[in-house]
Amino acid sequence: MNLHDLDTPSLVVDLDRLERNVKAMSDLVRPYGVRLRPHVKTHKTVEIARLQMKYGAAGLTVAKIGEAEVMAEAGFDDLLIANIVIGKAKLERLARLVRTVRIKSCVDSLEGAAMMSEMAVRYGVVFDVMLDVNSGLNRTGILPEQAILLGKEVAKLPGLRLCGVFTYGGYGPPVKDDGLRNQWARREAETAVFVARELENAGIAAAEVSVAGTPTSRFGAAVAGVTEVRPGTYVFNDANYVRLGFGTFDDCALRIRARVISRPAADRAVIDAGSKVLTSEKPVRDGQDVGYGHIVGLPDSKIAALWEEHGVVHLCDEGRQLKIGDVIEIIPNHVCPAVNLADCLYGVRGDKVEGIFAVAARGKVQ
Amino acid sequence: MNLHDLDTPSLVVDLDRLERNVKAMSDLVRPYGVRLRPHVKTHKTVEIARLQMKYGAAGLTVAKIGEAEVMAEAGFDDLLIANIVIGKAKLERLARLVRTVRIKSCVDSLEGAAMMSEMAVRYGVVFDVMLDVNSGLNRTGILPEQAILLGKEVAKLPGLRLCGVFTYGGYGPPVKDDGLRNQWARREAETAVFVARELENAGIAAAEVSVAGTPTSRFGAAVAGVTEVRPGTYVFNDANYVRLGFGTFDDCALRIRARVISRPAADRAVIDAGSKVLTSEKPVRDGQDVGYGHIVGLPDSKIAALWEEHGVVHLCDEGRQLKIGDVIEIIPNHVCPAVNLADCLYGVRGDKVEGIFAVAARGKVQ
Repeated sequence: MNLHDLDTPSLVVDLDRLERNVKAMSDLVRPYGVRLRPHVKTHKTVEIARLQMKYGAAGLTVAKIGEAEVMAEAGFDDLLIANIVIGKAKLERLARLVRTVRIKSCVDSLEGAAMMSEMAVRYGVVFDVMLDVNSGLNRTGILPEQAILLGKEVAKLPGLRLCGVFTYGGYGPPVKDDGLRNQWARREAETAVFVARELENAGIAAAEVSVAGTPTSRFGAAVAGVTEVRPGTYVFNDANYVRLGFGTFDDCALRIRARVISRPAADRAVIDAGSKVLTSEKPVRDGQDVGYGHIVGLPDSKIAALWEEHGVVHLCDEGRQLKIGDVIEIIPNHVCPAVNLADCLYGVRGDKVEGIFAVAARGKVQ
Repeated sequence: MNLHDLDTPSLVVDLDRLERNVKAMSDLVRPYGVRLRPHVKTHKTVEIARLQMKYGAAGLTVAKIGEAEVMAEAGFDDLLIANIVIGKAKLERLARLVRTVRIKSCVDSLEGAAMMSEMAVRYGVVFDVMLDVNSGLNRTGILPEQAILLGKEVAKLPGLRLCGVFTYGGYGPPVKDDGLRNQWARREAETAVFVARELENAGIAAAEVSVAGTPTSRFGAAVAGVTEVRPGTYVFNDANYVRLGFGTFDDCALRIRARVISRPAADRAVIDAGSKVLTSEKPVRDGQDVGYGHIVGLPDSKIAALWEEHGVVHLCDEGRQLKIGDVIEIIPNHVCPAVNLADCLYGVRGDKVEGIFAVAARGKVQ
């Protein structure tokens, strides 16, 4: 099938760029001897997870039980749920997974750990857990100064095995500055390493130290004591990351092809991709209204408004040549939730569609 | 099954409220003798479409070909695509649909209409079309003063049958003021009626005049010459509409049940619903940061930040009682894209889960 025969909107993955990105992250991380455990929430796709393993990933990170089930079913047997698993139904599912694959999840409270422990004992399994430490993002995670005490308590609970320390520090400073990003990433990683060493000093084995995302992995990997990094978005990259100075638009492997369905004014085009394709995510940098995605080749035209099934594009002078029926390519602001809206991705090389990848872990809200 | 046994996050529909909402809109519109053609993009669910038909809907509105195919397959035989269908692949699908159901779509340009005409002739079908008129929203739609000329040209094209005039004016003024909303809705409806009458005067039959959404339907229905209204969100309502003065939180039939997975600080809870459940849609009223949804019973607690799988809640004093494992109910800002993220809705009456409705037309990005 030819790229130009695809209906619109379509999420198209340039396979050359994808492979380049996957390989580049492996190359960035390898010199430090840390494990690469890429986060599959970005692509939710078995084929791309396989590609990541082929290029040296040691296991996968997933965001929730539903994603873990899909990846376990596809044969991946070393998973980390970068999240806290709470609730009877989910712990039952986790207990089933534990019987077939190596899988860890996070704890950040004694209450949560006690619930896990109770279920582990009831089901006769052992849950591997990572201590989730707040390194500054103020999302989940126990504060470092309280982490040692919690770690000691968790280590005593039956049915739990404390494997290490987990943190996520966010994507870093919202400016293009590698020095600042390095500082940010080091602070995140050093916080986790500190807690792991304190636990060791207290006689509690917590060998693994898992940190970082796409923009921070190469810096976090360099910190002594870190054992793995978890970048996700790097497989595709997106407009947010380019604006943050991580890569260029040419490094963006996923583009959304959308069609002009209306040209109601000289400076306005309406496309068939709205918020149910692009998501409503605003750019990272709030000060500057750059619209709902980057239009390839027309950087000064702006996707100014989204309705559910309409994108309203304010056209720059060059963009005024667009006609009804023309197809444009958009690099989304945030690629991960856009992929989550689609049922499949089209893998292309040049103009040739080489494969259709099911977004196998799409949905799975629970 | 009991409501409290559902895993989280879950989208739960209160069936009593749903039926009340569906009936209320029928009652609002019936006195004016116009047809009710509810927009199914809100629920994408066959069962709820059936309920709308049971309470007097004359047909359904859909947002795109993919939704039309699902509803046609389920037996609904009078559909309006509230959108412009452009591109060979989509027109082929439309040609297949035309053979089995009555289906209309919109045109707002001669170029688009000519493409449709060419495909209709090639496939030996007739496409029913509505003239999409811009009544002030500046999305798609031809300007009223240019519409008569376009209507005359469209009426001449082989393979097309011009059925009437279509417009969408948006949800109305972003303030609680029924007088202003009435003015807004009248201007929208009168624009469409004006164009339809001018076409008639020019000897072109364009009997149908299709207008309005949830907040404007009861006003649009009152305008002489309007033949149908297309409310969508009213089946569930949502926090945006309540803030606009359309109904109360008690009228909101869909709630998202989410669980507290972390209590990392006295004034902070983290829930298992993030942007992949709630969407990133900001409230309609930008001046006031009310967060990413309304928490039932805790109106002063705010869903202050969303990550893909985490919602960070800033707790009011009352909210501080929340414990890990507790479930909260959220009324989303904009219900339509939230439903589009889920695979199913749970229909409940009191605490009893009476049915599971597949979000049958979810996805279908093309």
